[in-house]
Amino acid sequence: MRPLSFNQATAKYWPLVEVVKGCEGAGVRHVGLWREPVEEYGLARSAALVRDAGLTVTSLCRGGFFGADDWFDNNRRALDECAELGAPALVLVCGGLFGRTLADARGRVAAGLAALAPYALDVGVTLAVEPMHPMFTADRSVVASLSGALDLCEPYPAEAVGITLDTYHVWWDEQVLPLIGANGDRIACFQLADWVVPLPQDVLVGRGLPGSGHVDFTPLVEAVLATGYDRPIEVEVFNQDLWNRPGEEILKDTIAAYESVMT
Amino acid sequence: MRPLSFNQATAKYWPLVEVVKGCEGAGVRHVGLWREPVEEYGLARSAALVRDAGLTVTSLCRGGFFGADDWFDNNRRALDECAELGAPALVLVCGGLFGRTLADARGRVAAGLAALAPYALDVGVTLAVEPMHPMFTADRSVVASLSGALDLCEPYPAEAVGITLDTYHVWWDEQVLPLIGANGDRIACFQLADWVVPLPQDVLVGRGLPGSGHVDFTPLVEAVLATGYDRPIEVEVFNQDLWNRPGEEILKDTIAAYESVMT
Repeated sequence: MRPLSFNQATAKYWPLVEVVKGCEGAGVRHVGLWREPVEEYGLARSAALVRDAGLTVTSLCRGGFFGADDWFDNNRRALDECAELGAPALVLVCGGLFGRTLADARGRVAAGLAALAPYALDVGVTLAVEPMHPMFTADRSVVASLSGALDLCEPYPAEAVGITLDTYHVWWDEQVLPLIGANGDRIACFQLADWVVPLPQDVLVGRGLPGSGHVDFTPLVEAVLATGYDRPIEVEVFNQDLWNRPGEEILKDTIAAYESVMT
Repeated sequence: MRPLSFNQATAKYWPLVEVVKGCEGAGVRHVGLWREPVEEYGLARSAALVRDAGLTVTSLCRGGFFGADDWFDNNRRALDECAELGAPALVLVCGGLFGRTLADARGRVAAGLAALAPYALDVGVTLAVEPMHPMFTADRSVVASLSGALDLCEPYPAEAVGITLDTYHVWWDEQVLPLIGANGDRIACFQLADWVVPLPQDVLVGRGLPGSGHVDFTPLVEAVLATGYDRPIEVEVFNQDLWNRPGEEILKDTIAAYESVMT
């Protein structure tokens, strides 16, 4: 079984020190990190913390939001942070319309990648465009499908611009399996989360641990592994009820959920 | 400007007789109908009502739900109802997972179309598969994109199996404009509704009148018209606040909204 990477957003309120200690104790050797808790603890300190615990960082979230005024400097800083943490991929949530038409907003994402790709190559970190579920197109990311994300990658080598593939965002897509098969080299980070209905009032925080919802994980996991994907697989779940529980319990349930869909 | 067809679901609580009278008075010559209000008023009576008012029926909603036990008989009845009403298209909401995997559920839709297509040709009504927004894939329709819907159409002549294209469901899709351009003959019914954020608690009833949300209508309308689409264009909006208003007002606002995005 590919090793699990525990994305710390799954236990949003668990302090970074506890996340690292918990993973160490549970035999989880990989973590996905977020910029805010890393900044809070200190970048150099965070890097030392995970390194001293023998953990590797599979991704840092998030860059993107190309509609924001400071997008260029902010994304360069995020790439620097990845490099210092040893994270191979910067997850890009590319931003919604910000008052533009869809075509213009997508053009801005493409221009942003063009501006950042050389620096990504310089620091050895992949800009990992995350296609997001189309219910987030207006306000969170205009990159709405794996097909659209791959088109954005196309001008660049896979080391510079790749994909964050999250089952929650792409499971519904009729084209996802053949597109994975044909573009395995683009997958910089693979994340698991489940689709649960009904959606809650805030649709951002209604995801489920793998196996608790409607996603058929087996074909998706098999398609990714068949491409030769050799990195750990993250579980990243935004769920208010889950977040409200103790971090140790969340980690334990995450491990069990991961194993249940990977066997 | 292509003529407007008023889909009666936009004024859910307005009795059919009033809808017809309202459209007649407002110079709207086309309506989209739903099976429940037609059944309530009586099929033959409904057909006579719209015919005597000089209206044409652009679609009947809905068939589909291939996971239901009586799907075969029910869809055949719906095709008969279309024929009697003079509706050229039966809108198909194909149904969610119903406990199956996504691949199996999609296979069931394909098998359902195969079983129904000959009868559709016999009665001269198109089975109009509606790709639905991917937030409905689990519980409402496993047909989640125009690409997926077109694949389902492919074995059949366009008179038998086509598409209901609703801007609300497809506006986010990176591939939608070229796919419309290459498959105009498949579009049996074109519907407009807008995407409004934030989504309400019940995501089914959060659509907006055209122009009130984030959809960029111009390229979508131009792409459809460029294929030679020569039918009226429906406005079909599910919105609880809109439904709570008097039917006359809803119709008036619908006409204004339609004109605002079509000019």
